[in-house]
Amino acid sequence: MNAGRVQQVQVWRIPCSGPGDLSGARTLIDAGEIVAADIVAVMGKTEGNGCVNDFTREYASSAWCHLLAPALGCTPDAVHARVALVMSGGTEGVLSPHFTVFTRRWVAEAPAGLGKRLVVGVAHTRAFLPEELGRTAQVDATAEAVAEAMRDAGIESADDVHFVQVKCPLLTAAKVSAALARGAAPVTHDSYESMGYSRGASALGVAVALGEVAREEVCDASVMSDWRLFSARASASAGIELEDNVVIVLGEAQGSASAFRIAHAVMRDAIDAASVRALLRDAFGLDPERDAQALSARLVNLLAKAEASPDGRVRDTRHTMLNDSDIHSTRHARAVVGGVLASVAGHTALYVSGGAEHQGPAGGGPVAAILRVDDTDSTFS
Amino acid sequence: MNAGRVQQVQVWRIPCSGPGDLSGARTLIDAGEIVAADIVAVMGKTEGNGCVNDFTREYASSAWCHLLAPALGCTPDAVHARVALVMSGGTEGVLSPHFTVFTRRWVAEAPAGLGKRLVVGVAHTRAFLPEELGRTAQVDATAEAVAEAMRDAGIESADDVHFVQVKCPLLTAAKVSAALARGAAPVTHDSYESMGYSRGASALGVAVALGEVAREEVCDASVMSDWRLFSARASASAGIELEDNVVIVLGEAQGSASAFRIAHAVMRDAIDAASVRALLRDAFGLDPERDAQALSARLVNLLAKAEASPDGRVRDTRHTMLNDSDIHSTRHARAVVGGVLASVAGHTALYVSGGAEHQGPAGGGPVAAILRVDDTDSTFS
Amino acid sequence: MNAGRVQQVQVWRIPCSGPGDLSGARTLIDAGEIVAADIVAVMGKTEGNGCVNDFTREYASSAWCHLLAPALGCTPDAVHARVALVMSGGTEGVLSPHFTVFTRRWVAEAPAGLGKRLVVGVAHTRAFLPEELGRTAQVDATAEAVAEAMRDAGIESADDVHFVQVKCPLLTAAKVSAALARGAAPVTHDSYESMGYSRGASALGVAVALGEVAREEVCDASVMSDWRLFSARASASAGIELEDNVVIVLGEAQGSASAFRIAHAVMRDAIDAASVRALLRDAFGLDPERDAQALSARLVNLLAKAEASPDGRVRDTRHTMLNDSDIHSTRHARAVVGGVLASVAGHTALYVSGGAEHQGPAGGGPVAAILRVDDTDSTFS
Amino acid sequence: MNAGRVQQVQVWRIPCSGPGDLSGARTLIDAGEIVAADIVAVMGKTEGNGCVNDFTREYASSAWCHLLAPALGCTPDAVHARVALVMSGGTEGVLSPHFTVFTRRWVAEAPAGLGKRLVVGVAHTRAFLPEELGRTAQVDATAEAVAEAMRDAGIESADDVHFVQVKCPLLTAAKVSAALARGAAPVTHDSYESMGYSRGASALGVAVALGEVAREEVCDASVMSDWRLFSARASASAGIELEDNVVIVLGEAQGSASAFRIAHAVMRDAIDAASVRALLRDAFGLDPERDAQALSARLVNLLAKAEASPDGRVRDTRHTMLNDSDIHSTRHARAVVGGVLASVAGHTALYVSGGAEHQGPAGGGPVAAILRVDDTDSTFS
Repeated sequence: MNAGRVQQVQVWRIPCSGPGDLSGARTLIDAGEIVAADIVAVMGKTEGNGCVNDFTREYASSAWCHLLAPALGCTPDAVHARVALVMSGGTEGVLSPHFTVFTRRWVAEAPAGLGKRLVVGVAHTRAFLPEELGRTAQVDATAEAVAEAMRDAGIESADDVHFVQVKCPLLTAAKVSAALARGAAPVTHDSYESMGYSRGASALGVAVALGEVAREEVCDASVMSDWRLFSARASASAGIELEDNVVIVLGEAQGSASAFRIAHAVMRDAIDAASVRALLRDAFGLDPERDAQALSARLVNLLAKAEASPDGRVRDTRHTMLNDSDIHSTRHARAVVGGVLASVAGHTALYVSGGAEHQGPAGGGPVAAILRVDDTDSTFS
Repeated sequence: MNAGRVQQVQVWRIPCSGPGDLSGARTLIDAGEIVAADIVAVMGKTEGNGCVNDFTREYASSAWCHLLAPALGCTPDAVHARVALVMSGGTEGVLSPHFTVFTRRWVAEAPAGLGKRLVVGVAHTRAFLPEELGRTAQVDATAEAVAEAMRDAGIESADDVHFVQVKCPLLTAAKVSAALARGAAPVTHDSYESMGYSRGASALGVAVALGEVAREEVCDASVMSDWRLFSARASASAGIELEDNVVIVLGEAQGSASAFRIAHAVMRDAIDAASVRALLRDAFGLDPERDAQALSARLVNLLAKAEASPDGRVRDTRHTMLNDSDIHSTRHARAVVGGVLASVAGHTALYVSGGAEHQGPAGGGPVAAILRVDDTDSTFS
Repeated sequence: MNAGRVQQVQVWRIPCSGPGDLSGARTLIDAGEIVAADIVAVMGKTEGNGCVNDFTREYASSAWCHLLAPALGCTPDAVHARVALVMSGGTEGVLSPHFTVFTRRWVAEAPAGLGKRLVVGVAHTRAFLPEELGRTAQVDATAEAVAEAMRDAGIESADDVHFVQVKCPLLTAAKVSAALARGAAPVTHDSYESMGYSRGASALGVAVALGEVAREEVCDASVMSDWRLFSARASASAGIELEDNVVIVLGEAQGSASAFRIAHAVMRDAIDAASVRALLRDAFGLDPERDAQALSARLVNLLAKAEASPDGRVRDTRHTMLNDSDIHSTRHARAVVGGVLASVAGHTALYVSGGAEHQGPAGGGPVAAILRVDDTDSTFS
Repeated sequence: MNAGRVQQVQVWRIPCSGPGDLSGARTLIDAGEIVAADIVAVMGKTEGNGCVNDFTREYASSAWCHLLAPALGCTPDAVHARVALVMSGGTEGVLSPHFTVFTRRWVAEAPAGLGKRLVVGVAHTRAFLPEELGRTAQVDATAEAVAEAMRDAGIESADDVHFVQVKCPLLTAAKVSAALARGAAPVTHDSYESMGYSRGASALGVAVALGEVAREEVCDASVMSDWRLFSARASASAGIELEDNVVIVLGEAQGSASAFRIAHAVMRDAIDAASVRALLRDAFGLDPERDAQALSARLVNLLAKAEASPDGRVRDTRHTMLNDSDIHSTRHARAVVGGVLASVAGHTALYVSGGAEHQGPAGGGPVAAILRVDDTDSTFS
């Protein structure tokens, strides 16, 4: 039904005072700036622990469902099928809770000479059985969903994909018990550990879809073990509130009428500010120190993954994150990467998600930058 | 007895595998590189929570006492009176546990033309009563000890002081009860909160001694309240293992025969990497990005304080550290500042201490850099 | 409008699979067992940390508002004015998340010879300014609300009050900043500590209303300090989600047509199982060991408060809860008291709330038991 | 050399003010009550998190080594080979840090008619490779060590063994990396999870040695999976500070000249106070409620294991311990069982150790009681 028409994607970063606070979004909707029915995805940072019993993700999702249901003419629960709601818990350190909202509308055509601009696509996998999580079943289903989301985004070449956000399930004690009772063997009995497996298999699915890893290189035993296999553009978050994988592809396409661009890089470790500065210089011509004001005005968000280096070392020096039984390593890692990125970007409402298994090299992670490159959208509508 | 002789200070940064691991130090002592009797101060980062029940500080101190007692010819307990042992708990994020060891010997004279070089001085206050902590009694005693440590260091002008490390006591539940039983009113009943008061009053004592704050501006009510009052060079750590304040003054003096220099700056907030890069450029002519190798070879350590901005905001955006009942805000802040500094310094064994009350501006903190400027010490001995 | 009619109170204990799971309640409403419009109070245990940043309380409240709004013909937000929603966070140890739902309807009369039976009344105070929390302003307003709730319950003598649940606000960093900006001085700057002050002042308000403490004995300085002053029937929970105090009075009255009774006792410390066993024996003739089955069938819930003894000792032996910077003392205390009560009651879905300042003696706390004494309600309707 | 002589075991419970505080022990040694050279085992409860990065265990062990080395005429490190130092971290809730010290001397004979009395025996396994932990290699080595410790104790029948304490290693991130580098596959990559595997395999070793489980029922896959296999008398604690298993057998033997007796029971779940009360009544004729004073005077300690029920339920009701990413389930479980046991014993310095994998039934655990049955030891010496 959108034949002959082109995408116009808009992106908002909206602060909140708590996981249930959507007053900022409501104001924009009431003012007509955001058309609720145009929202295709919300990527939130909520202030829970980002681990198993983080109900701030579910609470925020529930609040978005209640907000959007009337506009979409469906029940709150049915909103999930219409909008990709990805809530990433954990705002350790300076990170500031916020929502990044993506809208998409279809317009007649883009002005000439825009070049490649931001597009977005979404897809879902089927629901997984507990024993499928962290294994090739999840890898394959995710790869298919990425391909589907690329089609939805109108992206033809994997080179134009700059960030793939996956929200994936985890194993609770109840799910583990149920699987064991059926005679099925989940990949782990530990809820927290299951989050890593689910993220890792999802990321390998992205890597396969984008051609970064050949499918035949991946077997069940690769997940959480063969760190040579990774995607430079995958970001996976595990949550207690879903059973399937939700996939959001962010990339660029010729003919898009968006006022935004996106680019990506890879942090080689948690303190690799240099790669992020280079990304902003190379892709957008902005030097973080010299052009701080322009950067502050144009940068919508950095999207990044963080993890404690699995070999226990950063730049060849021991870290203590993996042996800490008081604070999970994902929480440490988000605090570090959030601080490092904020020191480059100059603000703290950044999307830094924890647990970068097979997402970027071991101890490092992908980072994408979304910038507004036109000052108004009015000429495009 | 050191009349007519000059200081030669040496500094080692020694990694450890745990709070009780002094194998690195023992190796250097056995090899004759470090003369145990020359050690005047040890500043350690240990891997506990850095809060009230962090016994890694006490454990590391105990290990140092047992290591040095035979060389000093005293009991383990008596080592505390001979060597300033300052253990700062908390290696959140990428921070790596280590000890920074300062030795001092007296040599005939320094080679000509060295300019100002590193000196160190140490002093102790009397033991404090519980109700004195966090109040002007602690401020005044600390100011006197700073002056005494400056004399010990051979520093005449406060301008030559670049870092003042204070180790100070805290209030345990037992101390609070004992004080209340005597009819005395401690400044707070909460152990964790008492750490902030003790650090804050100590820092104000440094500020008074260095002329950064006039004594008459400080009253009991200023502590933890009037954030306009601060020292740009104070670093205070609270611990359960002592009753008095230990003060270490680090600065420079003409005539010192040290191979090291020290300089300082102030981070205006937790993500202010720019000020640290400027410090290294301005004081030592090293650009962190361009001269990464030289910096890595010469930088002994960065000494810094970290805190969650008390107004709940960083760069005008909300943070969640002060409302987090799972992880204390000092832990968040160390993780952030440790990451930001490591992204500049290129390594992670940095001395980042939590709780910067009256140490630098609210939400920011002092940072000092110690560099080796001569490649050998042999010509000086 | 209920002139000449009598209360019939019913109580349900409903398990949940998470703070947003009201499927149990929905089933009972759909089956007609619970009439939504009859619900006067819900006391929930939710599985957050029970401290400042526990959003499970707010999430559960929000879910109840969305559930009841259609039945009450009001907006979700307006439900708070119609139903007392008290969510207590923290299910440490064996405690199991659940909701205790109180309904009240008015019937023509009670069958003869019932004796005293359960009644319930509710009242709200005005919203408090940040600087009023933890001080006599909160004490007095709470005392008035208790009197009002007693009238609502139809209780004439304070002797017939067995449990007074108060939900009270806390100070967030934002509230503290706002107050300071106005020149007002909150009782503490620390969010976690503010919870204790708010609970303490609320409990003293209950004590004054019930005649357990004379009003003239209470001044601002008494709160969190003079532990001789306490209520044996107050239970206060602080939460981030409200600005006023909500008061629920549970007691007994002649003429009530309820099938339930309530009685209370005081635990003198956290391990005082003996007092709870005595309560069940003395008030209801049930020996927990001998009559375990009858107890299990009839006991709806135990409502209790837990705290770490503020003098740092239990039965004259040191505990470590107050010096623990990893786990707040309220979390420890709930785990202990939950375990001790479950070992008496034989089940774990108990209402144990943390922070018993001025609620029972220092280190101990009130405990109330609600039992079903008639097997059916049908004869009463 | 002890031919023809009999054991006389004494037991002290000594409180401490911190993991490094041995002033209580030093006083008893200085007074001649404890002969340092007679100490065969110390079982300590220290106030760390009881998980991977709990250095309070190592700190306490180090303090004991420094205390005993002069008396034993060996280096501090060599004390470990002479005395079984078992430190169990975690004093959640009301539990009070303390040391239980066992001395053993050989006397000519026991007075007639004593009956069976307390004996103790100790043995060590070889050091384990990382990949042996949690597998049958650890099971078998432990079983051999139990048999050896029984011989050391002079116990002939497994029926006379009432408690077997094992201290076992865990996997740190460094050990895992080292094993993987060698091509070996540790049972888990997660440090915290490795503690459970190590405890589980050790407990199965005890079960095999005592005939509670047939060796052929145990394979690698049984560990942490087949909960039907367990020992009713095993207690295993994992710690970062050792590489081998240390085994302490506590039991009774005819002819022992000890003034103490020991008996054991099994708690079927964490709130099973009834079994503990029955143990005290049946084995020693003391009713905890009626004979509280006699119990308080005679009970040296309860030794118990605690765990969160692995099926996520207690008495068929959901608990939240296994999904809690802020507080590890072992910490919750110790708080609960510590509270329940203290409510029976009347004091809080109890040895409750976390993680009861294959130690008692799933969710429950063994408990042993040591009582002084004679008022003086003088007649025996």
